[in-house]
Amino acid sequence: MRILIITANGFEDSELICPAYRFKEEGFQVDIAVPEWGEVIGKKGYVVSANLSLDDVEPSAFDALYLPGGKAPASLKHMPDVQKIVQAFEKEKKPIAAICHGPLILAAAGILQGRKATCYWKVAEDIEDAGAKYDNVPVIRDGNIVTARKPEDIPYFMKEIIGLLKEKSSNDGANGL
Amino acid sequence: MRILIITANGFEDSELICPAYRFKEEGFQVDIAVPEWGEVIGKKGYVVSANLSLDDVEPSAFDALYLPGGKAPASLKHMPDVQKIVQAFEKEKKPIAAICHGPLILAAAGILQGRKATCYWKVAEDIEDAGAKYDNVPVIRDGNIVTARKPEDIPYFMKEIIGLLKEKSSNDGANGL
Repeated sequence: MRILIITANGFEDSELICPAYRFKEEGFQVDIAVPEWGEVIGKKGYVVSANLSLDDVEPSAFDALYLPGGKAPASLKHMPDVQKIVQAFEKEKKPIAAICHGPLILAAAGILQGRKATCYWKVAEDIEDAGAKYDNVPVIRDGNIVTARKPEDIPYFMKEIIGLLKEKSSNDGANGL
Repeated sequence: MRILIITANGFEDSELICPAYRFKEEGFQVDIAVPEWGEVIGKKGYVVSANLSLDDVEPSAFDALYLPGGKAPASLKHMPDVQKIVQAFEKEKKPIAAICHGPLILAAAGILQGRKATCYWKVAEDIEDAGAKYDNVPVIRDGNIVTARKPEDIPYFMKEIIGLLKEKSSNDGANGL
């Protein structure tokens, strides 16, 4: 199982770091893509090394996409490379997870139309404007899309995501993939 | 399953936050005890609310103890209340986990004599002076004690701890406890 994380400077530190550790605990490979290859720094000062530039991302190489929040999504959401990557995951119905401001990227990529989703309360209107059915609950799964509101939701968010990934892994195995 | 975390100002943020979220993901209750009831602040600025003072801790109420690192262990390790709590968990062979500078507390409480353990490399001599058999590996479990070196070890550390807690939970269940 190979997970792609897309972020940029100003990420919410715990929303990037805790899920990345959690994926690694499961034995999943975690790749981090940023606009320009190198280090990025979070709101609280954690420095994370990205191993990919957005240019290098080949969506077919990954099983799932994760978008942390913080200030990063505001700079990422209008980038055509980011939107194309999100749309490629959605087209294949691969798991897509986003927290806090992360769902803004899903909204900008046009994949929330008619979908149930949550996000940080301050940007709820933005995802509703993109057609999402917003609800103020810790975590929502709608098909392949899992969203959460804020760092404190991470326990419930990760439970849902890991469950979805294991389900997918088990189905892929059953199909001989 | 009820987990006690002991910390203080200056904790390493990810070493407190990520494991706390991970325990909650498993449905465990997490209690945070600090020298004086209230909020504590990490090295990176995360503010965490403690629900207990060290005075209030009744070790028999908990199933496991976790000690994050950062600057907190240096101020905690010589506190008699902290040492008594650690010794109470050890006496009952309840799971005790510590990362980074956290094992300094185990050393000061006198429970590392003859035990295999790891920690942040700068304090390896301190735990060896307390009788520990130090090794520079991501995670070590010696009976009920699980130790790790640094934040990047969290995936392996949590896998070991969660495994130990589930084992304990299953054994307790078998014993009708």
